[in-house]
Amino acid sequence: MDLEQISEILTRLEQHETRAARTLNMVPSENSMSALAKLPMLLDLHHRYFFNDGAEDEPWEFRGVQELSSLETELARPLLRELAGAEFVNVRALSGLNLMTLTLSALGGPPGSTVMLLSRAQGGHYATASVAARLGLKVCYATGPDAHTVDETQLAETLRAHQPGLVYIDQSNALFPLGVEPLARAVQREAPNALLHIDASHWMGLVLGRQLPNPLAEGAHSFGGSTHKTFPGPQKAIFATNRRELFERFRATQQYMVSSHHFGATVSLALALLEFKHCRGEQYAAQVVLNTRCFGAALDRLGLELDGKERGFSAGHQLWVRTRASGVDAFTASQRLFDAGIRTNAYPSLPGIPEPVLRVGLNEPTYHGLMADDMEELAGLFVAAILQTQPTEQLAGRVAALRARYRFPYRFPSDDPKLLEQAMRLVRLALTQPVE
Amino acid sequence: MDLEQISEILTRLEQHETRAARTLNMVPSENSMSALAKLPMLLDLHHRYFFNDGAEDEPWEFRGVQELSSLETELARPLLRELAGAEFVNVRALSGLNLMTLTLSALGGPPGSTVMLLSRAQGGHYATASVAARLGLKVCYATGPDAHTVDETQLAETLRAHQPGLVYIDQSNALFPLGVEPLARAVQREAPNALLHIDASHWMGLVLGRQLPNPLAEGAHSFGGSTHKTFPGPQKAIFATNRRELFERFRATQQYMVSSHHFGATVSLALALLEFKHCRGEQYAAQVVLNTRCFGAALDRLGLELDGKERGFSAGHQLWVRTRASGVDAFTASQRLFDAGIRTNAYPSLPGIPEPVLRVGLNEPTYHGLMADDMEELAGLFVAAILQTQPTEQLAGRVAALRARYRFPYRFPSDDPKLLEQAMRLVRLALTQPVE
Repeated sequence: MDLEQISEILTRLEQHETRAARTLNMVPSENSMSALAKLPMLLDLHHRYFFNDGAEDEPWEFRGVQELSSLETELARPLLRELAGAEFVNVRALSGLNLMTLTLSALGGPPGSTVMLLSRAQGGHYATASVAARLGLKVCYATGPDAHTVDETQLAETLRAHQPGLVYIDQSNALFPLGVEPLARAVQREAPNALLHIDASHWMGLVLGRQLPNPLAEGAHSFGGSTHKTFPGPQKAIFATNRRELFERFRATQQYMVSSHHFGATVSLALALLEFKHCRGEQYAAQVVLNTRCFGAALDRLGLELDGKERGFSAGHQLWVRTRASGVDAFTASQRLFDAGIRTNAYPSLPGIPEPVLRVGLNEPTYHGLMADDMEELAGLFVAAILQTQPTEQLAGRVAALRARYRFPYRFPSDDPKLLEQAMRLVRLALTQPVE
Repeated sequence: MDLEQISEILTRLEQHETRAARTLNMVPSENSMSALAKLPMLLDLHHRYFFNDGAEDEPWEFRGVQELSSLETELARPLLRELAGAEFVNVRALSGLNLMTLTLSALGGPPGSTVMLLSRAQGGHYATASVAARLGLKVCYATGPDAHTVDETQLAETLRAHQPGLVYIDQSNALFPLGVEPLARAVQREAPNALLHIDASHWMGLVLGRQLPNPLAEGAHSFGGSTHKTFPGPQKAIFATNRRELFERFRATQQYMVSSHHFGATVSLALALLEFKHCRGEQYAAQVVLNTRCFGAALDRLGLELDGKERGFSAGHQLWVRTRASGVDAFTASQRLFDAGIRTNAYPSLPGIPEPVLRVGLNEPTYHGLMADDMEELAGLFVAAILQTQPTEQLAGRVAALRARYRFPYRFPSDDPKLLEQAMRLVRLALTQPVE
């Protein structure tokens, strides 16, 4: 074929990668991750299946990575058990929504059963009710007086009246994490046969980094979520519980809903967990929350309108910025920020907000290394971009400089000469497969 | 952290990659793919979401890869439309089972509806009935007198009696593809309101490579499947139809069952489709079928017992080898082959076979470049490994030499100096993110 075409595509990818390295990504549901930890996806192992689950006496039907499977059983799982404070974990779901489907399937009861979800007005995920309905589950909701609160009376009455088999709480548009402990107490009191599962996708890095209470310690029967929002890992998802019976139910469902569990991503997850444990993941998590609060306060001082001001703007990684009062529609603001090298979410609506809004996350800038002291400067750039008070190109240069101030403080040092040489050798091997 | 630990893991990955480059992988449900086409998974784009679907006027909520999204809309989709002979395609499912869940959800009707599946005794996939049941669907089966045949009378009677809304045919343990045309005729005659969907996961490379009839041309309403079995692509899946209404139903379901569609894998798929079109994918597909038949005949001449002998052993990529008559259990045979550098599937059972059996695929050896002339030699190595008539190490050396005889004939030449340099520069950029 004409090699020009593939070469041009590689050039386009290179241009995007170069731009990305000059960008601050402030999308709460995204994160970057260790480049070294992504290497497994480039290798032969990426293509290989297996169904074995770590039992010594289980015969190997698919043998492609039997020699590497311990990277799941003896690295990913023990690390996750430790970080998640759980006796039983499963790392085979492919994504957050895949995990949601598995969890509702495994724990939600047969078609016709009732599950309780968090209302979207209280930050529940957009897809959960549709997935539940498609599984034949009936749905009731926990609701509340505002975007950040569940009404305890309504919760108790609904639990009592509907007696759901599963309460699935998936706060995803959220400034303040719902306390799991009062939820667990209500479930235990009003619907004692119900299971309580926390979908902590958005909070995962903060939970594993011990900035938020562990849902299992607070009384949830299980928790899980994707590994690429506040947790700086691959597109994957995890399930954790201390109850063997729930683990086995989940595992039985996973076996028919996920066959190839994308072992390349599993090994990436193992490396990301290792990195999180050894490269100051807890400090990263604490810094996310601190940076978020500081950035919210700085935006507020500069005159932007933010939700949750009375409670300190956020107790996690998200901020919700209303730009209309500043005379700029959120979608326009998002475009201007993008042009200046800052990626945010423009949302048509968020709970309790009657206008398009910017959903902003400090998780990835924090992962790049930004500290509380940088938030004032970042807020200045952010506001200048929205209000166009400085030339875009100049702003973009300052954003790039701010990002370049730090070098992967929570990563394996992939620019360490020895590691880099080893990584490059591995990549060259994958690309050329020389045979001695 | 201690860099030794990560360095040791990289060494382990390198050792595996080196071994893999000396291996012939003969697992029918796996394939390798272009190393260049895997590069996107290493980049910033891997971490980014979007929900946009290519409409010009749709505002961008998630902007991370808006500048690259045309690699889906203007590269992957048109290529797939062309190769799949379909007006409408969707490339957002994450895996074959994820696609199966989406398809049954979108086309199977609400809970309580009936779907017809291919019985496992006729090669149907192990998971389909469980997924359908979990979606609240009632299941009836197409069955037949042997592993390779659907009984037309039984099919007609069952269609007439059950009037399924969807007939989902997913032949996965199969030597001979079922003809779609007679299935479509029966469905049209006996259950004219039913949709016919073909899950062509195992056959995908042979369908896109025009070695098997296109299911849509034969009367199926839609088809789809994973892209990493006979098709040498990423862990992903595709859906194709000529009916706008079915495309829209699929799309509506996909929107709540898959949010992040793993854009890195989507770009990999785009590159794999480009490569398949321009690097003689049709010739690869023809060679798979030829190699499979030749390898079957060669094993037969050397005294192994294979199914389907009366029909030429196979009309696709799979062979089923019974080893017990040669005095070796299939799991032992699989271990001995593995030790000699040949990966196969040992299956506890396959349709119509009352003993463990080796399921063997010629797809990946063909992708490496092996030709019909090599099949005699490969069969000799295969049998010698099973019967241990030559020292294992010597066999492994000969397997590696056989593989090394060819250099990626159906790939972008990733060892072309200019492309390799460009690829390595891109990887170094991802690993070090230098800022000018």
